[in-house]
Amino acid sequence: MFSTERLMTLAEKMRESGLTQTVITDSDAIYYLTGEMQHCGERFLALLVKDNGGATLFLNKLFINTLIPNEEIVWFTDNVRGAQLVANYTDHSKPLGLDKNMRAEFVLQIMGVNAGSEYVNGSLLVDSMRAVKDEHERQLMINASILNDKGMTEIKKYVKEGVTEKELADKLLEVYLSLGADGFSFPPIVSFGAHAADPHHEPDDTKLEKNQCVLFDIGCAKDGYCADMTRTYYFGEPTEEEKKIYALVKKANESAEAMIKPGVRFCDIDAAARSVIEEAGYGEYFTHRLGHSIGREVHEYGDVSGVNENCVVEGMTFSCEPGIYLPGKYGVRIEDLCMVTADGVKILNSVSKEMESL
Amino acid sequence: MFSTERLMTLAEKMRESGLTQTVITDSDAIYYLTGEMQHCGERFLALLVKDNGGATLFLNKLFINTLIPNEEIVWFTDNVRGAQLVANYTDHSKPLGLDKNMRAEFVLQIMGVNAGSEYVNGSLLVDSMRAVKDEHERQLMINASILNDKGMTEIKKYVKEGVTEKELADKLLEVYLSLGADGFSFPPIVSFGAHAADPHHEPDDTKLEKNQCVLFDIGCAKDGYCADMTRTYYFGEPTEEEKKIYALVKKANESAEAMIKPGVRFCDIDAAARSVIEEAGYGEYFTHRLGHSIGREVHEYGDVSGVNENCVVEGMTFSCEPGIYLPGKYGVRIEDLCMVTADGVKILNSVSKEMESL
Repeated sequence: MFSTERLMTLAEKMRESGLTQTVITDSDAIYYLTGEMQHCGERFLALLVKDNGGATLFLNKLFINTLIPNEEIVWFTDNVRGAQLVANYTDHSKPLGLDKNMRAEFVLQIMGVNAGSEYVNGSLLVDSMRAVKDEHERQLMINASILNDKGMTEIKKYVKEGVTEKELADKLLEVYLSLGADGFSFPPIVSFGAHAADPHHEPDDTKLEKNQCVLFDIGCAKDGYCADMTRTYYFGEPTEEEKKIYALVKKANESAEAMIKPGVRFCDIDAAARSVIEEAGYGEYFTHRLGHSIGREVHEYGDVSGVNENCVVEGMTFSCEPGIYLPGKYGVRIEDLCMVTADGVKILNSVSKEMESL
Repeated sequence: MFSTERLMTLAEKMRESGLTQTVITDSDAIYYLTGEMQHCGERFLALLVKDNGGATLFLNKLFINTLIPNEEIVWFTDNVRGAQLVANYTDHSKPLGLDKNMRAEFVLQIMGVNAGSEYVNGSLLVDSMRAVKDEHERQLMINASILNDKGMTEIKKYVKEGVTEKELADKLLEVYLSLGADGFSFPPIVSFGAHAADPHHEPDDTKLEKNQCVLFDIGCAKDGYCADMTRTYYFGEPTEEEKKIYALVKKANESAEAMIKPGVRFCDIDAAARSVIEEAGYGEYFTHRLGHSIGREVHEYGDVSGVNENCVVEGMTFSCEPGIYLPGKYGVRIEDLCMVTADGVKILNSVSKEMESL
């Protein structure tokens, strides 16, 4: 069961990079490679992969799973330090890759028994595989965003004077579940007025007043894959300045999306959006990267930012989410998910980006 | 603002243990020590604490928070490796404590710039403080469990033939929100029949049939603190064997709870429950520790298990959750939260533990 095509691809990438052994602890990464999903909470869980494609799972006996053939599992109980067992299966004279998400508690235990000659971040090899979605994954990403489009269309019906951010966030979960989604892909951001100037505002008990903007940055999960979209509406009439800012953000979003195709660099996509905003004099108010890769996790490896000079490849999926944040006043962000196709891009969201008063 | 009483206590514990510097990255731990809550997702966030009580926060500029006085913050952007900046503020000739939850990506960056002479798990010092709840925290724990009792009483009304585990789990969220809780403290476990024999079963689309057991392991969060309780009901009539198993688990739960008071060891509390089940011949079917500490997080430092020889102290709060799991047949678990008082224990849950057919 562990002899999957993806494990063989990982082994090939390990041989290319000269890494002979790597420990993967992230549940999503283990699922991606083996098809087996395990969550062990704070307990140790790891897949040791060798550059011949061999893989051994280290699993607490509490999580006995009859789907996995036992001969490839090292079982342990709560009475031992599972992470130290890894050293019984590694070559201590060679570097050992560690999962970027492995908790320090286990990193220190593995180092304490000298499981490797040195330690490197081994996640890049798996992350670069996960960044390129296969056909099945692409369909799941599309499905999740179809549900998210429906969710956005539905949740805006509940915008009315006096409703709170938190009430809308709670209602959204009901909406997603009723649409058949599995739940949130991340805690939703619902921001009124000046709250929208904080890109990571958490919904609170603030009541909506007339002539405030209403920003929804929301996503559902479906069959293990994530959606993520932002729209900014107006409750009442936007001012002339708000109209101008909105048009700028929309132009930035569309300019970036229009240039996406295989071979274009992430940093150039970021620059396409950023230059629109900078040229209008608002560059200092666009305070974050343009986007992030997305898949099983809402934030995956692969920034759409000025420092990522890699080229996009068919099957990569990431967000395009420029914003302008005017402290104490309001904020505007417009976000779609973008999937790179053979000769361009498929925008996974179809909710209108025209300015809209609710 | 960083000069809190808790930081001073931590510094005192550091001096006692000889650790001069430690890096804390866990959001809950940082909140506990400073009163400031920050979530930075996959981005680096850390509080460097020195043994004189001085503390410096390392924070991505994306999360500008005007509540924190700026002079104690080292700001950085997405274009630098924030973790490496820690080395500018540490004594490279002395050991450096690392948060047990720090991600390996950052551990390797900190080690790569030789921020300390060696690295140790520094979390125990903070965890041992957090294990003993102060008066305010105790009240919040009590409040969360009062809501959870109401949630259990409410959710069992929805048990009926043909309902699915997932439908009940989804309904429970509505129930919690309507009661004024902030949400789940963990994804609920709802298990019918043989599914209850897997202690960590995830609710699925299985429909409830007559004469199955219905296990709810559920918790809500309120004001940052967690509840957690398990009850096992019967939909229809339990068999004689089920009655016997249920009575055993109840006796194990009650025997353990009855002995809790300051000075008793965690391992002896575990043994009190385990011996009841072992003596009846079902020891091999009680496959996990008796319980776990709980507070801001649903699982905190401090197992109620055979290997924890520490004594309980007034203010500690943990679960008592014996179970018997008969593979392919059914399972029974009964769980309360227990708060150690000056001379005994306060059981935070008051939902009946008598066997009940729904």
